[in-house]
Amino acid sequence: MTARNAIGRLLKPRSVAVIGASADASKTAGRPVAYLQKHGFTGDIYPVNPRVDSINGLTCYPDIASLPDNPDVGIVLLGAERAHQVVRDLAARGTAAAIVLASGYTETGEQGARRQQQLIEAAGDMRILGPNTIGLVNLTDNIVLSASGALEMDHFPAGGIGVVSQSGGILGSLLSRAAARGIGLSKLISTSNEVDLELSDFIDHLVEDDATKVIALYIETVRNPEKFRAAALKAASAGKPVVAFKIGRSEAGAKAAVSHTGAMAGADSMYDALFRQVGVIRAQSFGDLLDIPVALATGRKLRGPRIAILTSTGGAGTLVSDDLGMQGFETPAPDAATAEALRALQTGDHAVLDRNPIDVTLAGLQPDLLRGAINVLLKSPGYDALAIIVGSSGLAMPELMAGAIEDCLPGSDKPVIAYVSPHAPEVGALLTQRGVPAFTDAESCTAALGAMLRVDRWQALAPANIFRETVDVDNLPAGSLDEAQAKQLFTRFGVPCAREVEVTTAAQAEAAAHELGGRVVLKILSAEITHKSDVGGVAVNLAPGTVGTRLQAMASEVEAKTGERPQRFLVQEMVSGGTELILGVHHDVLGTAILLGMGGVTAELFKDTTMRLLPSEGGLSPEEALGMAQDLKTWPLLNGFRGRPKADVEALVGTIVAFSEMAAQLGDRLVEAEINPIFVLPKGQGVRAADGVVVLAG
Amino acid sequence: MTARNAIGRLLKPRSVAVIGASADASKTAGRPVAYLQKHGFTGDIYPVNPRVDSINGLTCYPDIASLPDNPDVGIVLLGAERAHQVVRDLAARGTAAAIVLASGYTETGEQGARRQQQLIEAAGDMRILGPNTIGLVNLTDNIVLSASGALEMDHFPAGGIGVVSQSGGILGSLLSRAAARGIGLSKLISTSNEVDLELSDFIDHLVEDDATKVIALYIETVRNPEKFRAAALKAASAGKPVVAFKIGRSEAGAKAAVSHTGAMAGADSMYDALFRQVGVIRAQSFGDLLDIPVALATGRKLRGPRIAILTSTGGAGTLVSDDLGMQGFETPAPDAATAEALRALQTGDHAVLDRNPIDVTLAGLQPDLLRGAINVLLKSPGYDALAIIVGSSGLAMPELMAGAIEDCLPGSDKPVIAYVSPHAPEVGALLTQRGVPAFTDAESCTAALGAMLRVDRWQALAPANIFRETVDVDNLPAGSLDEAQAKQLFTRFGVPCAREVEVTTAAQAEAAAHELGGRVVLKILSAEITHKSDVGGVAVNLAPGTVGTRLQAMASEVEAKTGERPQRFLVQEMVSGGTELILGVHHDVLGTAILLGMGGVTAELFKDTTMRLLPSEGGLSPEEALGMAQDLKTWPLLNGFRGRPKADVEALVGTIVAFSEMAAQLGDRLVEAEINPIFVLPKGQGVRAADGVVVLAG
Repeated sequence: MTARNAIGRLLKPRSVAVIGASADASKTAGRPVAYLQKHGFTGDIYPVNPRVDSINGLTCYPDIASLPDNPDVGIVLLGAERAHQVVRDLAARGTAAAIVLASGYTETGEQGARRQQQLIEAAGDMRILGPNTIGLVNLTDNIVLSASGALEMDHFPAGGIGVVSQSGGILGSLLSRAAARGIGLSKLISTSNEVDLELSDFIDHLVEDDATKVIALYIETVRNPEKFRAAALKAASAGKPVVAFKIGRSEAGAKAAVSHTGAMAGADSMYDALFRQVGVIRAQSFGDLLDIPVALATGRKLRGPRIAILTSTGGAGTLVSDDLGMQGFETPAPDAATAEALRALQTGDHAVLDRNPIDVTLAGLQPDLLRGAINVLLKSPGYDALAIIVGSSGLAMPELMAGAIEDCLPGSDKPVIAYVSPHAPEVGALLTQRGVPAFTDAESCTAALGAMLRVDRWQALAPANIFRETVDVDNLPAGSLDEAQAKQLFTRFGVPCAREVEVTTAAQAEAAAHELGGRVVLKILSAEITHKSDVGGVAVNLAPGTVGTRLQAMASEVEAKTGERPQRFLVQEMVSGGTELILGVHHDVLGTAILLGMGGVTAELFKDTTMRLLPSEGGLSPEEALGMAQDLKTWPLLNGFRGRPKADVEALVGTIVAFSEMAAQLGDRLVEAEINPIFVLPKGQGVRAADGVVVLAG
Repeated sequence: MTARNAIGRLLKPRSVAVIGASADASKTAGRPVAYLQKHGFTGDIYPVNPRVDSINGLTCYPDIASLPDNPDVGIVLLGAERAHQVVRDLAARGTAAAIVLASGYTETGEQGARRQQQLIEAAGDMRILGPNTIGLVNLTDNIVLSASGALEMDHFPAGGIGVVSQSGGILGSLLSRAAARGIGLSKLISTSNEVDLELSDFIDHLVEDDATKVIALYIETVRNPEKFRAAALKAASAGKPVVAFKIGRSEAGAKAAVSHTGAMAGADSMYDALFRQVGVIRAQSFGDLLDIPVALATGRKLRGPRIAILTSTGGAGTLVSDDLGMQGFETPAPDAATAEALRALQTGDHAVLDRNPIDVTLAGLQPDLLRGAINVLLKSPGYDALAIIVGSSGLAMPELMAGAIEDCLPGSDKPVIAYVSPHAPEVGALLTQRGVPAFTDAESCTAALGAMLRVDRWQALAPANIFRETVDVDNLPAGSLDEAQAKQLFTRFGVPCAREVEVTTAAQAEAAAHELGGRVVLKILSAEITHKSDVGGVAVNLAPGTVGTRLQAMASEVEAKTGERPQRFLVQEMVSGGTELILGVHHDVLGTAILLGMGGVTAELFKDTTMRLLPSEGGLSPEEALGMAQDLKTWPLLNGFRGRPKADVEALVGTIVAFSEMAAQLGDRLVEAEINPIFVLPKGQGVRAADGVVVLAG
């Protein structure tokens, strides 16, 4: 059965068999039947347990063969030792999908891995969710196929956020936290070990699910990057934002490598690249994984950074304003017309309504004043959104307040959020349910508004680059190339390199230097020695007449340090006056990425790098290449910072695209490639690759 | 009356007059009497209101003159128009302190400022809390002198955290949020406008308050830095941690100035410097202002970064581990002996107890297993602290679980914290009350443990530097000094400067260059032109023989650009091979600070600077100077990063101390001073100030 059909049945089965069901609802095995009933499942439930006659008033069957009908879905509660037998029986009856809760598979070692293989074989054409899953919950239709203890709660608000979690425990956490805050979810699925149905299958399904407006992901690992990319792009074109929280951020992902690229690229920053390229918004904290979706689920978009803060408590308004300011938002005072309209509402003596935060403390909590002020602020051309601060005074009459706010929503499509200052979860939940996402941390307000501001930008994806021309790469050598060979390869793909001449003698070197003109660089040429400076094999800024002598001295120094006298040298034009960058290729389980980093030791300390994954065919687009340069924290150095000349960004963009095409065409043959440094000269003067490393597979 | 005595009475009055009390408890003016009664005040309450005979069974007095006794404290609920009259009456009766709730003072403009002055005059010797305050709460003794709506709650856990807030609304927020989480507070005071009693008065008092173990501050501005410094240092020597959250972080505090120092120093980073120097831990978010104190109030100290994570739900354990890892904590697997002890506890089949997070999911929530595992982990020499993750399975029997955890606490002095994964506020509150601070965000766990790790370090303050010798500074000129004069001043205080000779002619310049030896720098010498490069007034790396010609050319270029031909020049030794820094003085309402920053355009982009405030007498200590260098993100550049030679840090430290002594001795006369750049040469070769700016007041 196709994943799509199986997931359709999983989320909306007509009948469910629960194998290993217990009559004791306090046990995990007792939960699924109890929860199905408690939350109002209207289909058939078939408990299976040879030792019990009935469970909660339902007939209990001794085995799968004796079920009165073929169940759509089977929930398997047996341990890993026996689960595969039941899975085989379910498959034999034509069940669409089995949910396997047992742990003890690959996560426990070798024996577990064997069991997992057994399970896959037993399933045949039947699809599996899990193992090691806590199941799924369809809140849209009140269908609960899960043993999560969080389902003890009586009611969960249904809404527009679909959640896929690779952890079962996190599913329970998100479900209960969302319910307590009045955040409505559509579907929750825990995929865990993903022997079959996985993350991307469910993203794909949720994109087509009418009830789902936003997709939230808790990710431990993306097992199939291509499928993920396709599903995320499908969500983007459907206009459904995808928000992902990914753990493993602190993993020491950098590995030792010949080039710097390996050390500069962390495994986690590959996820940054992947998410950015397919329009997935990355949640920076677990809390953001609810905070951002609840804001996006309102469907309201933020058109600018100017936020009006309406408050009934001074301190908290300042707190929110302060945090917004740290992230680049603006909280300007009302313009003249808005201030006048606010003053016209004013009844109290000391209320100060013409500043921002707009403080209605003294006026007290009068619904009419509140309604008036909200309408004025939403209509003001000076504000792009409204944040309402709820203080202690609002707690006495939450309904009245929530009602007043709700009344104003239809009059505007600007975002409206709330910050609840005292502990008052019921007030926050009420507001959220009425369409005003409520938060208890200033940082959450900022993250939510930030996502609302960026959501369109995230989804505006640059198309992949189509190969401009194909370069013949059939006759390349294997192994480490020397610097001259590496640059010849770069040149074939259109990467501009510093002019250079290969020499073997002092006389040739001097002749070459005179021919190049101006000052030159002298280096040994060797495929084996990649860190030439470390052995004394680089001399810069040489006058042409001194090159011959320097060559002799260099040969002796390198011989003393390595035991071998170098035979070949490069004389290269001395490039100066530009900005040094590094451009490299990074491979990872997620794919192949192009890395751009600022050069120089200071930038290295700040790890100022960015990456883009190559699409499945072709290189990066010019838009993506420009985005990379602009990602760098030191981008201003290229853009005229402090009176510096603007750099030739156009040439840099062309070079990144060319380098990415090289990586794309060489594919797996390209083990390693790096240009370090590449000089970006002032506008109109181009770029020059000054040194390079390439390692090719045979 | 002294502030100390007045605060003693404010926090523990025998009698309280409530002026303007209302019989309607739903009104703000009805709250103080109602709350005093509700929360069990045992002293005398005197409501004052000429229009009412009694309130809540208490005799109501028409005015202050008719009170049966002199009240210790008066709560003034009248508006700003009349408050000063009542304050005068209270003062006349010898009341220790008045709490003035009215707003409408300086925060509203000029008329308010006049009212505030009136209020101060009316008080005479009587002390005032406020105005615009919401009052205070003494939870240790159940005394509530506040109108905060948060006090509608029936019960607040008493504990060891004393809170001073400059915002009244925030007091209510902290009070209700702490109560909901089971976090015990000792005293809460809202100081607001601080016409009299202020932040530091209450810090000083809380240091001596036995019930207070940790002091938490919500700061909008420090009005008296010297008092704050003294109070914070007193807390530090008493071993009471002070945690501060300060708003105004996004304020655009940098001001234009002749030197770079002004632009590089933000107002908020002065607070960083102040807090760091007096041992105050800065809360990075409002949430941290409860999260860090509740951890520190346990009195447990973290001796290292190795955290054991015991979990009953896989996902959340990983989540916490991941966040800890991002902040430099370690979550190593159990050592052999610990793993063996854990395995000996194991009853289930698949539980994996020899990894970290130590997952007891399958073993279920058995109190004995939990108790055993906690004891093993707390005793393990491989761990410095324990984080317990509570999953859905723990929700069914919170008491049993909390009890098991609590039983283990006395056996170890290592920190134990909890992370509650599902929404279960009652479980978190129970754990917190039993001495295990519970959090709902991984970031909170990390912040709490981070503060526990650093608390000793923050309190180990370097003593202020005593002047090594006094330099005679009586005969200094006023206004902008030229570069030569500036460096002469630096030299008098012991700052090493590049060797240089002042010249007026080309011939003198060449002679000077030959005398200095090696390559030189040539600059115009002018007190007016501070940005010499901008007018073509700097040439570097000149061979001695070319200096004369260059001088003529420079004179012409500068003349063309400024309209005036320069008459004086400096010939300076060319310093190279070192690391460029900037060293400057920054003035602010908080005091005078020394700023150290990395030089060069890249470091400037990253705003890599740090500051230390000068103590009231003398300069910085060598420990503080070294701390500044180590604060820099680019500190590795001075410390042998990537095979670079180690810099002469000892000479740098001596130079920072010398420069700080200059700033201290010159005091207000030093309007501006900056060395930019100062070169730090390789170890043993010292430092050289290469250019400098000084502006002196007359």
